[in-house]
Amino acid sequence: MKVPPAIRWSDGKLTLLDQRRLPGVVDYLDISDIPSAIDAIRTLAVRGAPAIGIAAAYALAVAARNAGDNAAVAGVLRDGGNALIAARPTAVNLRWAVERLRERGAAEPDPAALAAEAEAIHREDAAQCRAIGEHGRGLIAPEANVLTHCNAGALAVSELGTATAPLYLNHDAGVPFHVYVDETRPLLQGARLTAWELDRAGIDVTLICDNVPASLMAAGKIDLVIVGTDRVTRNGDVVNKIGTLNLAVLAHHFGVPFYVACPASTYDPDTASGQDVIIEQRPDDEVRRGESADVTAYNPAFDVTPARLVTGIVTDRGIAEAPLESTLKNLFGKP
Amino acid sequence: MKVPPAIRWSDGKLTLLDQRRLPGVVDYLDISDIPSAIDAIRTLAVRGAPAIGIAAAYALAVAARNAGDNAAVAGVLRDGGNALIAARPTAVNLRWAVERLRERGAAEPDPAALAAEAEAIHREDAAQCRAIGEHGRGLIAPEANVLTHCNAGALAVSELGTATAPLYLNHDAGVPFHVYVDETRPLLQGARLTAWELDRAGIDVTLICDNVPASLMAAGKIDLVIVGTDRVTRNGDVVNKIGTLNLAVLAHHFGVPFYVACPASTYDPDTASGQDVIIEQRPDDEVRRGESADVTAYNPAFDVTPARLVTGIVTDRGIAEAPLESTLKNLFGKP
Repeated sequence: MKVPPAIRWSDGKLTLLDQRRLPGVVDYLDISDIPSAIDAIRTLAVRGAPAIGIAAAYALAVAARNAGDNAAVAGVLRDGGNALIAARPTAVNLRWAVERLRERGAAEPDPAALAAEAEAIHREDAAQCRAIGEHGRGLIAPEANVLTHCNAGALAVSELGTATAPLYLNHDAGVPFHVYVDETRPLLQGARLTAWELDRAGIDVTLICDNVPASLMAAGKIDLVIVGTDRVTRNGDVVNKIGTLNLAVLAHHFGVPFYVACPASTYDPDTASGQDVIIEQRPDDEVRRGESADVTAYNPAFDVTPARLVTGIVTDRGIAEAPLESTLKNLFGKP
Repeated sequence: MKVPPAIRWSDGKLTLLDQRRLPGVVDYLDISDIPSAIDAIRTLAVRGAPAIGIAAAYALAVAARNAGDNAAVAGVLRDGGNALIAARPTAVNLRWAVERLRERGAAEPDPAALAAEAEAIHREDAAQCRAIGEHGRGLIAPEANVLTHCNAGALAVSELGTATAPLYLNHDAGVPFHVYVDETRPLLQGARLTAWELDRAGIDVTLICDNVPASLMAAGKIDLVIVGTDRVTRNGDVVNKIGTLNLAVLAHHFGVPFYVACPASTYDPDTASGQDVIIEQRPDDEVRRGESADVTAYNPAFDVTPARLVTGIVTDRGIAEAPLESTLKNLFGKP
């Protein structure tokens, strides 16, 4: 794999690949405090639900080290944690990672322990991605045409990606297949990130506009859709990048299997359904740029795909299929 | 209406609004021969099925005037006409307009007669748009949320547009409604042209990415979809801008009426179904621009929406509903 890591942690120093500048420029940002982490998260320098969680955990560890006494460390975990969570309200991994650092900090208010906890989250994420890949790789038949949306790739997590993990493992094993990547307007994560990382890894990839999947499916040219997710609610609803619902409806209509890939940390049993999730609204200017008319825009970052449109959820513990509410509960053993 | 005309014809001089430069620059191109017309058509300086037909007709009239004797005029109609038709193979109006000029030229090989014929096409188009608007305006209830795709507006035809004609007439009559316009990647005709012309006309418009309609429909925020078309085949299949099939499938899934608007010249009874239409493939670079990874792209200009996903076709002669093949045949009286 020739994809640079999204998150680097070395000698207690956190740097993040600046994904806003990809694919043109490969550069890293120094993250030395909570505000710089929030800025990186909010402006999508780092993005992808698992990667945001890992970055937030390391940022808390860095800020705790610079805080001073135990009371100050507790303050970082409380206030800095809340500020990080608020930076992107939809991805559940961010909250999950902050809470995990808080639990460790409550037991051991020691910056070294917090750094160790962040490293554990990072390490576990890599292992989870590999497990997702192992569970999911059988879904991709030789010569299959796979469609993915946004970036749930190596850049979104620690290593193999979530939706891309089955692709990377099959590619490494010499299984031939082809991937269609849609642009994913407005921020073009498909065009800028997924197409780039798959191409760098030597995978056969074709870039398409978000308007093209329907015609490809109608022509029988898509065998499988696989995407990541920012949150899976208790009933199996999938909150993911705007346009995911679009692909799920198309896949349902044309009889194409629609899979979602995620680690355990993306499962949110405390939220009953996708209707209960706050959908982040992003600035008009992400849509209305340069070439557009100067009119009002509506720019939701995510949509909700109802569980009934999901063929299966590929997790690090196996593939959950319908009825998703009970199979997810069985896999994850909670609540 | 404050939308500048797409096509100007004055004192035998043809100029076309350069739609590639909208909304930033309002400028006109001089079209003095067949090659300059072909360039304008191929690069989408002029676009929209009816507008292409009108522009081609005037271009033939201009070239005929400069040709010299009757044999030369016949040559223009034959060779120039073929070259024009080849510039964009999907839109049926282009071929239809060229053939109409050829018929007139066969009867009256006189440049003045050809100019009169082009003027007649232009005039009839304006009348047809108004008739489409009158037939379609009742589909838009007060306070309705309407979604349209690409540009089937005033810029695509001579005056009121096709899909937009019901909107303009209702707006002029003081009926309140709201229009969502999707960007229409890759060339952003929705963002650049439709949002711009509706906004200039004072219509309440919101720009969205092509990924957003599914979530809006799921939330009950779209009451009607109306789009234009480049060709309606004998069975009622609709060939239109890539992404139209996407919206038709979504509308079907969410129970939203899906209408198509077009004049008689867009009906192609000689082609049995959409499967028989050549879909123009456009350059990779329209997708892969600047911010994208440097990978292979697939860039079809159109898709085919099967008749069964179309609620109705709003024409200048009335609204055709299912079964479309027979209702279209009855409306248009052929073949």
